[in-house]
Amino acid sequence: MLLSKAITVIESNLAEDQKLSTDLLEKIIHATGNSIRIGITGVPGVGKSSFIEAFGKHIISLGKKVAVLAVDPSSQLSKGSILGDKTRMEELSKNPSAYVRPSPAGDTLGGIAQKTHEAMLLCEAAGYDVIIIETVGVGQSEVGVKNLVDFFLLLMLAGAGDELQGMKKGITEIAQALVITKADGENIKNANAAKATYQQALHLQPSFNSEWTPKVLTASAHTGSGINDVWKLILAYKEQATSSGFFDHNRDLQNMEWFQDHFQHLLHSDYKGFKILQNQKKKLETQILKQKISPKLAAEKLLEEYHREVRKLKAKS
Amino acid sequence: MLLSKAITVIESNLAEDQKLSTDLLEKIIHATGNSIRIGITGVPGVGKSSFIEAFGKHIISLGKKVAVLAVDPSSQLSKGSILGDKTRMEELSKNPSAYVRPSPAGDTLGGIAQKTHEAMLLCEAAGYDVIIIETVGVGQSEVGVKNLVDFFLLLMLAGAGDELQGMKKGITEIAQALVITKADGENIKNANAAKATYQQALHLQPSFNSEWTPKVLTASAHTGSGINDVWKLILAYKEQATSSGFFDHNRDLQNMEWFQDHFQHLLHSDYKGFKILQNQKKKLETQILKQKISPKLAAEKLLEEYHREVRKLKAKS
Repeated sequence: MLLSKAITVIESNLAEDQKLSTDLLEKIIHATGNSIRIGITGVPGVGKSSFIEAFGKHIISLGKKVAVLAVDPSSQLSKGSILGDKTRMEELSKNPSAYVRPSPAGDTLGGIAQKTHEAMLLCEAAGYDVIIIETVGVGQSEVGVKNLVDFFLLLMLAGAGDELQGMKKGITEIAQALVITKADGENIKNANAAKATYQQALHLQPSFNSEWTPKVLTASAHTGSGINDVWKLILAYKEQATSSGFFDHNRDLQNMEWFQDHFQHLLHSDYKGFKILQNQKKKLETQILKQKISPKLAAEKLLEEYHREVRKLKAKS
Repeated sequence: MLLSKAITVIESNLAEDQKLSTDLLEKIIHATGNSIRIGITGVPGVGKSSFIEAFGKHIISLGKKVAVLAVDPSSQLSKGSILGDKTRMEELSKNPSAYVRPSPAGDTLGGIAQKTHEAMLLCEAAGYDVIIIETVGVGQSEVGVKNLVDFFLLLMLAGAGDELQGMKKGITEIAQALVITKADGENIKNANAAKATYQQALHLQPSFNSEWTPKVLTASAHTGSGINDVWKLILAYKEQATSSGFFDHNRDLQNMEWFQDHFQHLLHSDYKGFKILQNQKKKLETQILKQKISPKLAAEKLLEEYHREVRKLKAKS
């Protein structure tokens, strides 16, 4: 599949693949941006895979094409990451209108998020009109992922008392909706009670720039109940944010952030690319440890060396 | 006073002052490192100023010279920052063996910490053998300040129930000791109870690289009780960490971090120094917003422009 191959090129760290991926992005950049980008997160056990499978199948039944990209900062370390597990979302994976891709490897969340951003652009160019970015856990990673999506959905379990505490910080400041999962059978009552509690708690939260108040819903991947309500809510958000201008404004801000991130990353790897500077750095470190030079002057000397190497580059080319 | 003037130069962002401060640091770098560097933090109201005043006066009575430097990331915003308040530590400020300096202004914690690091080096060269770095609050800032000090002291109040929760994350992983303040009069009983509770909680914490188990003490700035115990504990830590080699190893790691920080900062401000690149950046941003170029290629183009400017620099000089 062409899309898979293109994403593999983008995820590669080889210099030639990086060159190719820049060219590829240039060719498709005009055809990007036409999807709705949805972030879905929640602690392990909340039922992310089941929810995404049910949600994905539902919107495919409405005629949409859905891509699911995972962002899992732990994937590099654990290898056996749940997001890399190919047996997940089995039905969705096989659906011709769906594309499911595990998390790229990477040593920093920033690097992983960057690659996921580019994979998302490729999916858009390939005609996927709903992009789901799945992230693990409730923590630092979501803040980084916020820059990827238009709408952030937090999945929660009913009766998880500690979570209300967690809601007060961080995640609820970036989520546009909470969904209480597994709202079926005997659990419906609990789910509705949790919904009321969370709604109350969210009421105290500062509202978004978009003037959107975070909503709380219940859903069951098992019975399908509430799944369409989630989709309708996302469409309602998109409509409101589009008419207020926030939707486009937010995308613009995100693009400026990606530009900034890419440049910082490039500047750093440009310096690191000059092997000779690593030797120079080691020498300066030794001098610092012997108290022969201050860290400040050492940094200035290293910058001078970097400038010198940049000039040599010109002479060679 | 020469020290004050030197620190003012270091805190200045003017290019000529920066040049001067680099020269100044080179002159004194061999005479630095001979103090014990103590970080003291705690929430507002815990009695930081009173504790530091009592503690400072006590160690001066033992023949030491004490410098107190504040790190307050909020000082820029609030202006009326408590750490800038000159009426604080009135007695200590007037003592000829003490030097008290408010937080430098700065727009980032990194910048403030960097300036405080350099001010600390100047204080050491001026013969101060105990450096106290005072920080506000219990949060992000302490992690940045960790790199400045050998020993981190967290002040806490007895009976502040929520704090135990906070202890589980972050701060206690970097503090070598907790001190329950205001342990006098009717509060002694509460302070001792809190000490037992905190000790229990710390028992569950992972131990430090230094193989030091965080200790809990009680103290009163009012009666002076426990103040000498804190000083003895710090000396005991220094002895243990020195004989295990951790003390020097930690300082070396800190110096490498400063070098790295300075360089990153310099690299960024070097790029920012080329005004023409800001125009180029704006043009690229416009192209990104019109989807004519990807953020990735825009970043590559900006790096090329940066290289070009570095080369011009050579041609001019």
